[in-house]
Order: sequence, then structure tokens, then C-alpha cells
Amino acid sequence: MKALEEKILKDGTVLPGNILKVGSFLNHQLDVDFLMEMGREIASLFKDDNVTKILTVETSGIAVAMAAAVAMHVPVVFAKKHKSSNISGNLYTTIVHSYTHNIDYNIVVDSEFLKSSDRILIVDDFLANGKALLGLIDIVNQAGAELVGCSCAIEKGFQKGGDMLREKGIKVESLAIVESMDETSLTFRR
Amino acid sequence: MKALEEKILKDGTVLPGNILKVGSFLNHQLDVDFLMEMGREIASLFKDDNVTKILTVETSGIAVAMAAAVAMHVPVVFAKKHKSSNISGNLYTTIVHSYTHNIDYNIVVDSEFLKSSDRILIVDDFLANGKALLGLIDIVNQAGAELVGCSCAIEKGFQKGGDMLREKGIKVESLAIVESMDETSLTFRR
Repeated sequence: MKALEEKILKDGTVLPGNILKVGSFLNHQLDVDFLMEMGREIASLFKDDNVTKILTVETSGIAVAMAAAVAMHVPVVFAKKHKSSNISGNLYTTIVHSYTHNIDYNIVVDSEFLKSSDRILIVDDFLANGKALLGLIDIVNQAGAELVGCSCAIEKGFQKGGDMLREKGIKVESLAIVESMDETSLTFRR
Repeated sequence: MKALEEKILKDGTVLPGNILKVGSFLNHQLDVDFLMEMGREIASLFKDDNVTKILTVETSGIAVAMAAAVAMHVPVVFAKKHKSSNISGNLYTTIVHSYTHNIDYNIVVDSEFLKSSDRILIVDDFLANGKALLGLIDIVNQAGAELVGCSCAIEKGFQKGGDMLREKGIKVESLAIVESMDETSLTFRR
């Protein structure tokens, strides 16, 4: 998605530790009109897949998932990062390792909201090593639902999570794939 | 908002400890079409206030804030609940007490995203004792921005946070105000 690549080049900042900071539009401040454009793009990439529900994980996946869901007229379910006192009943849960924060955390979805009849599109803001997506895929499998594919706003192509998932036969559509980046330059995979 | 009251009566569940569980449409699964309707309602309540930015706090405020922002064509900024390694630079920060989880936590906003020229509408999913909104108002004040008002999806009228804010002269518009609730009945303020 050309407009996203341009926005990353214009507004993104690369920090040490392979961090691409896009807080001005994607995960601290939200450029809502632009997010809705990204959502329409995701909807068009999965328009023939009969998606019934979008699954994401809090926090920063919610905005892009919601934008795609508005375009597709399906609900979003967001996995929570720990057992909250407001979640009760039967849960799907799995452990995800965060390299950004260097911790393991539980993600949890109330089993009420994912059914074996669902066709699930997983959406997130970033795809790097793929650990968050693998956790969400595990939850889709626990529910016995069909995984339609995964779509992320920004994939760090050099961290191989996206290619690892594609090699498993999963449809992975990222709106921009960063091929390389450092504090002075950033290139995209075409 | 009549449609929200009906949805709360139909899909909400009251749990012990004054918890109103609305995970099926507002804060675990998101009924996106309905959220967009709520967003248009918020936009109409603040249409003459020249809002330039919506401020909320992660996690469950994000969806309703985004829905309002889509209708108003303004950006959202969401406060983060702790200092993350992806936030750098100058920060506005304050401490909020959560009665749900019985902890104090820091909320943090990068000062880059709130300016003294901004006219801020604060949006959240729930308004109970008002502690989260007071924290966000503190951040608006730190930025020297103008507070236009606060809008929440569901106000627990019996917990007095909304009335406390109204007594300070703040415009507070909740889409549904629960006057009383227990495990067998729920009434709204009219």
C-alpha cells in the first residue's frame, strides 16, 4: 500500500533495537481517516474469503482491526493480555513471548466469542517474528474455527515471521513490508 | 441513546461487585456497526464544540473513541497505562486508581501529541467513579489544552463520578446512564 509506505517514510522513526516508531498515526495517536483507508485495503485483500470475524490482540491491534471490520461489517474480538476480573467463563488461552518488552504473557479470549463455524481473519499492527500471530492462530485452532489468513499494517520483512507463516501455507497480507531499516535509511520489499 | 439502553438490557450481564459485563459488543467482542452508530451520536452531541482531538485511555476506550473520531474526522490519542519502551521523549503522566483491579497505575501521553491549541474531547467506554477521566483531564491540563467535555458509552449513575464532573462545570454526555442495577434488574436515568 503505497500511501502507507509514504507515511512510514514521512512520519516513522527508527530507534535502536529494530524499533520502528509510528506513534504519530498507528499506535499512540491514531490518524483515523488513514486507518479507515487501511481497513478498506485489508477488506479488499480478503473480499472473497467470507470472513465472519476479525481477531486481534490488545492494545495496538484494535484500531487497525476495527478499521478493517468497519469495511467488512463483521465483529472484532480482541484477545486480552491477562485474566481480567471482567472475563469469566470458559477461556481460550495461550502464552506469547514479547521481544519488545522481553516478557511472556498470557492472551485470553472468552470462548463465547469464537465458534467452530467462524471464518477468522487475524489483524494486527505489526508483524515481526510472528509470535503474537502464532498465539492468535493457536486460539483460532482451540476454537475449531477456520483461519482465513492474517493481515498486518507493517511487516518487518527482515525478521522473518511473515515468511515463516507463509511457508506454513497461511495467507499473509501486510500493507507495507519493511525490507531493511536503520537510523538513516528504510527500504520496502516490492 | 435508546438503542444502547436496549442493547445493555438484551446483552449485558450484571456480576457481583457492580460489574456490568458488556463484552459481547463493547469491550471484548466489538459490534463495530453499532460502535459506529455510537460514534455518530457522540459527534452530534459535540458538533458545535470545534473538537480537534479525542483523548482516551487504553484498552477498552479505544474502540468507542475511534468510532467518534471517524464521525468527527479528528485524530485519537490514547494514553498508555505504563511507560513502554516504545514511548520516548517528553511525557505527560498521572496516576489513576482502578477500583476494578484495585491498583494504581500510571497513564502516559507523549507530549508531542497534545498541544495547547488543541480542543480535547475525552471519550471512554465506562464512567463510574470518574478516576480515569480525572486522570485524563489532568493530562489535558498539563498540555495547556482546552477541555471541551467528556463522553462515555455507559455511565454508572449510582457511582457519582459523572455528577462530580458535571458539578465542576464540565460537559459530560453519556450515551446511557444506569441508575440502578443488580442481578435481577437494571434501570436507566432519564
